[in-house]
Amino acid sequence: MKFEILQHDTHSAARTGKIYTDHGIIETPIFMPVGTVGSVKGIHPRELKNDIHAQIILGNTYHLYLRPGIDILRQAGGLHKFNTWDRPILTDSGGYQIFSLSANRKLKSDGAYFRSHIDGSKHFFSPENVMDIQRVIGADIIMAFDECAPYPCEKKYAEDSMKLTHQWLDRCVKRFDETEGLYGYSQTLFPIVQGSVYHDLRKESAEKIASLNREGNAIGGLAVGEPAEQMYEILELVNSILPVEKPRYLMGVGTPANILESIALGVDMFDCVMPTRNGRNGMLFTRNGIINIRNEKWKADFSPIDIESDCFIDTNYSKAYLRHLFIAGEMLGPMIASIHNLAFYLWMVAEARRRIANGDFLSWKNVMINQFMTRL
Amino acid sequence: MKFEILQHDTHSAARTGKIYTDHGIIETPIFMPVGTVGSVKGIHPRELKNDIHAQIILGNTYHLYLRPGIDILRQAGGLHKFNTWDRPILTDSGGYQIFSLSANRKLKSDGAYFRSHIDGSKHFFSPENVMDIQRVIGADIIMAFDECAPYPCEKKYAEDSMKLTHQWLDRCVKRFDETEGLYGYSQTLFPIVQGSVYHDLRKESAEKIASLNREGNAIGGLAVGEPAEQMYEILELVNSILPVEKPRYLMGVGTPANILESIALGVDMFDCVMPTRNGRNGMLFTRNGIINIRNEKWKADFSPIDIESDCFIDTNYSKAYLRHLFIAGEMLGPMIASIHNLAFYLWMVAEARRRIANGDFLSWKNVMINQFMTRL
Repeated sequence: MKFEILQHDTHSAARTGKIYTDHGIIETPIFMPVGTVGSVKGIHPRELKNDIHAQIILGNTYHLYLRPGIDILRQAGGLHKFNTWDRPILTDSGGYQIFSLSANRKLKSDGAYFRSHIDGSKHFFSPENVMDIQRVIGADIIMAFDECAPYPCEKKYAEDSMKLTHQWLDRCVKRFDETEGLYGYSQTLFPIVQGSVYHDLRKESAEKIASLNREGNAIGGLAVGEPAEQMYEILELVNSILPVEKPRYLMGVGTPANILESIALGVDMFDCVMPTRNGRNGMLFTRNGIINIRNEKWKADFSPIDIESDCFIDTNYSKAYLRHLFIAGEMLGPMIASIHNLAFYLWMVAEARRRIANGDFLSWKNVMINQFMTRL
Repeated sequence: MKFEILQHDTHSAARTGKIYTDHGIIETPIFMPVGTVGSVKGIHPRELKNDIHAQIILGNTYHLYLRPGIDILRQAGGLHKFNTWDRPILTDSGGYQIFSLSANRKLKSDGAYFRSHIDGSKHFFSPENVMDIQRVIGADIIMAFDECAPYPCEKKYAEDSMKLTHQWLDRCVKRFDETEGLYGYSQTLFPIVQGSVYHDLRKESAEKIASLNREGNAIGGLAVGEPAEQMYEILELVNSILPVEKPRYLMGVGTPANILESIALGVDMFDCVMPTRNGRNGMLFTRNGIINIRNEKWKADFSPIDIESDCFIDTNYSKAYLRHLFIAGEMLGPMIASIHNLAFYLWMVAEARRRIANGDFLSWKNVMINQFMTRL
């Protein structure tokens, strides 16, 4: 993997760049649609490419390990072959899902013991086997095995958790560097900054992560319930330590406003289930604000979902039709809303890249964050 | 509407033809995907056109009348404008759904009183207002208001039901001929042959329907539980009476074998929820037989769904991936299976047309009906 910075914004820490992987180039800042169990819910890879213009998608190690399982993924030749997505993929480490989804989890220094949320079966994830599993899944960018501390969180817990994450990280790096990709293309490992909302812990963690000199770095444990302002403060601190010349990935974030503010603070990569999950529930992000499409007010609004968009569904389908599909419980409703929201997120980061290059990102961002978050 | 017969099969009653409507040409024999509430479940109109090659789709008057309702459809400028499908549409009359879905229905000579299956609200359908409703929906081909007798059915019930349907038919024809389309294109009304499994009733009904000399004719009340052989006998009888030079539409049928046998008996048009409904449950119709994709045997079968198909999903996605999507409960599974099944049905009727033109339809059909219905 190679990262090239194209432009630095003169008014903020924002920058544009290109990440080169064996599955193609990713323009940054970028948003990565989440394909939890090997599909971005309700969307064909063809639509992800042609209509949404996704450049990289996520897979979840915890989910893929349970279903379809590592044997099937190995036989398939990795996730790209299995799900037909031939552009870059990033996988998380499963740490977050073990703590949010699984039952009877036990954290020990050697790793995490847990029961599947599907059938209660017992499993064990260690820094080493999570590297091995991600070798089999075959994502271009893989993540270190970490504990994502909850919010709120006592400082003692946050500190112990961070230390364990750092120990695990050293084991991840060792295992990763001793092994090779299975399918003839290269993979890279991103370490993750933790430390909850404590500035001294975040500083310590960012210094540890920076010292490893990996090809990219991630920031975890944010947008877990803390106020947005606190997240931005921590991002500013962490990004002042993480090397400028490496891509920075803010995990699991967020709203359009969160993303634009974080771009201004020097973040390059984002993922979040919000556009697809909220889309399935009938909430649309648009350039003029947020639409709850189930609302009575759209019942006879035959105007296109978004006339300014270049995505076919935004100009073809009307708000009244989309509302009808949701009210009638038709599958096509969530399908349209998911494509719409992802196309909007990908348009938003493309526009951010264009504005950074033009030098007017900051003023654009300050207008847009209010506009995007208005309830229509 | 105009119907032109292109070829008659010399070995059977099959024929190929073209139906000309103001929304385009329909090649017959044709299968019509069912878009119950204004969308073919899980499928974008773009996919219906480009990937499935659908030429005409169905809407259900009962469902559309309840949701989104006639006011919205009138304001939208009809169903074509509302759901973005700009090729021909056919709507049924709602009679079938009143008897299969609604509660507290009461059949009187003036029409049918019923309660909505959605909210229990009271409604009344008469031959006249069903014509008016279908004028508002704006389908190219609309259906007479009929009672579809259940199976099994006493002869007395079947006879009374047929007579009522004939009375209603005269009122439908009168109302239809006194009114005009609302949106600047023409509509046509198909009457429906009823009579349950009784040959004398079917003969009487077919003669009544033929005498009206409409632009096309439909056969209802079949595939409601009677043995397939009995359906074919009745089709042969009815088609010997219905005029050769008008298209014949067999309502709600059916399996691939049903369709091919019925084409051989002179039927031109079909609709059925089977390809989409069964698809959503993981049952795939293929040229080599029927696949239950949830079956363990497909778990590590990385071959394409159907390598011989020209539909992108059949050559892109593997059986193992599709099985995984169903097992994991991912929306994309039903979406892929629905496209696959409809693409198969549309391929099958296109191939039937080609075989009729080539003169080898009957021998092809006799091989295919066994092959298509084999369990893989």
